[in-house]
Amino acid sequence: MALIVQKYGGTSVADPERMRAVADHVARTRRRGDDVVLVVSAMGSETDELLHLASQVSRRPPGRELDMLITAGDRKAAALVAMALADVGVDAVSFTGSQSGFITDTTHRNAKILEVRGDRLRAALAAGRVPVVGGAQGVSHETHDVTFLGRGGSDTTAVALAATLQADACELYTDVSGIFTADPRIVPDARRLQRLSFDELLEMTATGCPKPAMRAVEFARNHHVPLHIRSSFTWEPGTWATEEDPTMEQAIISAVTHDTSEAKVTVAGVPDKPGVAGQLFRALAERDVNVDMIVQNVSLEGTTDISFTVPREDLDAALEVSEALRPEVGASGVTADPDIARVSVVGAGMKTHPGVAATMFETLAAAGINIEMISTSAIRISCVVRGEAVDEAVQALHRAFELDRVVTS
Amino acid sequence: MALIVQKYGGTSVADPERMRAVADHVARTRRRGDDVVLVVSAMGSETDELLHLASQVSRRPPGRELDMLITAGDRKAAALVAMALADVGVDAVSFTGSQSGFITDTTHRNAKILEVRGDRLRAALAAGRVPVVGGAQGVSHETHDVTFLGRGGSDTTAVALAATLQADACELYTDVSGIFTADPRIVPDARRLQRLSFDELLEMTATGCPKPAMRAVEFARNHHVPLHIRSSFTWEPGTWATEEDPTMEQAIISAVTHDTSEAKVTVAGVPDKPGVAGQLFRALAERDVNVDMIVQNVSLEGTTDISFTVPREDLDAALEVSEALRPEVGASGVTADPDIARVSVVGAGMKTHPGVAATMFETLAAAGINIEMISTSAIRISCVVRGEAVDEAVQALHRAFELDRVVTS
Repeated sequence: MALIVQKYGGTSVADPERMRAVADHVARTRRRGDDVVLVVSAMGSETDELLHLASQVSRRPPGRELDMLITAGDRKAAALVAMALADVGVDAVSFTGSQSGFITDTTHRNAKILEVRGDRLRAALAAGRVPVVGGAQGVSHETHDVTFLGRGGSDTTAVALAATLQADACELYTDVSGIFTADPRIVPDARRLQRLSFDELLEMTATGCPKPAMRAVEFARNHHVPLHIRSSFTWEPGTWATEEDPTMEQAIISAVTHDTSEAKVTVAGVPDKPGVAGQLFRALAERDVNVDMIVQNVSLEGTTDISFTVPREDLDAALEVSEALRPEVGASGVTADPDIARVSVVGAGMKTHPGVAATMFETLAAAGINIEMISTSAIRISCVVRGEAVDEAVQALHRAFELDRVVTS
Repeated sequence: MALIVQKYGGTSVADPERMRAVADHVARTRRRGDDVVLVVSAMGSETDELLHLASQVSRRPPGRELDMLITAGDRKAAALVAMALADVGVDAVSFTGSQSGFITDTTHRNAKILEVRGDRLRAALAAGRVPVVGGAQGVSHETHDVTFLGRGGSDTTAVALAATLQADACELYTDVSGIFTADPRIVPDARRLQRLSFDELLEMTATGCPKPAMRAVEFARNHHVPLHIRSSFTWEPGTWATEEDPTMEQAIISAVTHDTSEAKVTVAGVPDKPGVAGQLFRALAERDVNVDMIVQNVSLEGTTDISFTVPREDLDAALEVSEALRPEVGASGVTADPDIARVSVVGAGMKTHPGVAATMFETLAAAGINIEMISTSAIRISCVVRGEAVDEAVQALHRAFELDRVVTS
């Protein structure tokens, strides 16, 4: 008998019909002999609707009140799913974040989990009941206020519960059937992966794969919680993310990801002396600008260009900060480019297979796509290209690395 | 400087515009120098919408889950109103029932308040903030579950808070401008009362006056909390309910009320011996049938007819219980009449003015309206009449007792 944490996202509980389908699936899981803990998100687009309401009553809603508001949506969904379960004969009980023991800091809208006290959930499980936990919520440790874990926080709730309760697996139910070798909207023959490593999934979510939430994947990796990303519409098995299995032959490249949400800033002609980059990125951090890629090229003339990418909505702030620092650091100019895209190849096998970078660059060159920035990690290579070239880049790379071919393992 | 508890019902916080109007009014109250504690209900018809959702996922939703669901609505409204207050420069902080210290029993859907721990609210007030409390909710004392105080529970929340915090007054804001001498939809020249006693208001709410919730009036009377029922649309002063002031000359009759939500059951030809009525009403109580009026006429033949009224939705259950008992108690028959109405006159002055009953009966007779049942209290006389006669009965009584004339006091 296993203990499974099942998380259902907003589309999986969007209306009463979907909730009843979830209840049937949980009943099936229980009949198989497994114990289940559920985590549910707010119904459909309710979180957005609540935020819209907030914007109608306040020009700058306080974070504490936004958290109180938003978490009402997940709580409502939890109560309804518990009712749907009762209706199919499964003894269920809903819990708020506070009731399920999520103690957080006081960073409203993006609270960090400090501790998970699983006592009430363990007691419910011992009594043969199915706990249904409202996702993405907790209670702050000193002020006892309601806190929200942020967008995608229900994934984090589920993984944290799986770790606390030492569950055998954490199933993340969503509206796609797993993790694909590329976005199927761009690459029609993209293949669903049966399995990948935490590190690979982490790199993928960091470079444009929209689900699951990166923070949850990081938590799963650190706490060794096997993740199963799967569909609540087909109920078929999806993609497992687990620790790397050294005995298994690895695919060199697992997937091609892309991200079109960023913009590029270049601070040009910076004197090549220590401290300049530190000064710039400290100032950006203080304005809460979320810097992603950073590339610096030293030129022969003793000056350097520093380029970095930021979420497009942070571009104005990034430009302001950079312009303000320009005289001080002696840069010759600051330019912005909102029309970029990043395309990445991710694969654990890359570590033992040289030549992946070369293949990537050759492939893009053969397609006539210019590379503007490059950054790499041990299992990922990313290139910044023109925005309009992104689909072609993804398709060409998917072909070049033969990702449409089924790998037997 | 006074401390005022202000309760805003669903229509008063139905949309962002109404919430902003509430925020402006609270800001005005604060500028006047008063401290304020707010209690808010769920927006508009949200409670009904949540119940409808529940009925779509479950044929018989568990009470605990319904409470978890319904209270999310009031909590959401509290967060939004707190934001609206912040937006007009009022430092506000929302609280759930649990956070504001409402400890209840575990009777889900209709929980009783056991204790109100006002510590967090007192601390917020001492810090110069306006607490905004989600209405009609608490936490159960042993199981720590979320509980719902029932329909109209926000009134009770407000009065209980006013008692706990020793507030100077409890203002109940609603979509009518106060308590009227009769329903203005039936009697166009019905007059708003400036003031009435708790006992009068209690009798009125017991006999068809829809607001405020009877339970809240009872609580206010027992804890000496002055109530002010007023409009959140005009913001004009409304009706005060206070303890009876013996120095004041009382109107004989304050208002005519009516209730068309009940049905009548008659158990006829019952042998007139002790214990029969006890047997019948015990059995009805065990089926949770809410019996209102009871009238028994002893006949000369040693048998008696017992008639009683129940909410129309309880009629089937009441008939079942009565029919089942009929052979046992030796009754000759059970009849149901769903088409009745009750019309009542209420007034504290009645105690010292004989002849009110006579005037009432004469007035109805003159209008050709037959009286089917009569019941009285010290300050109320109620008559059951045909359903179709109710408007005419109310109009005739309002005229007969000259309630359209302004009383100078």
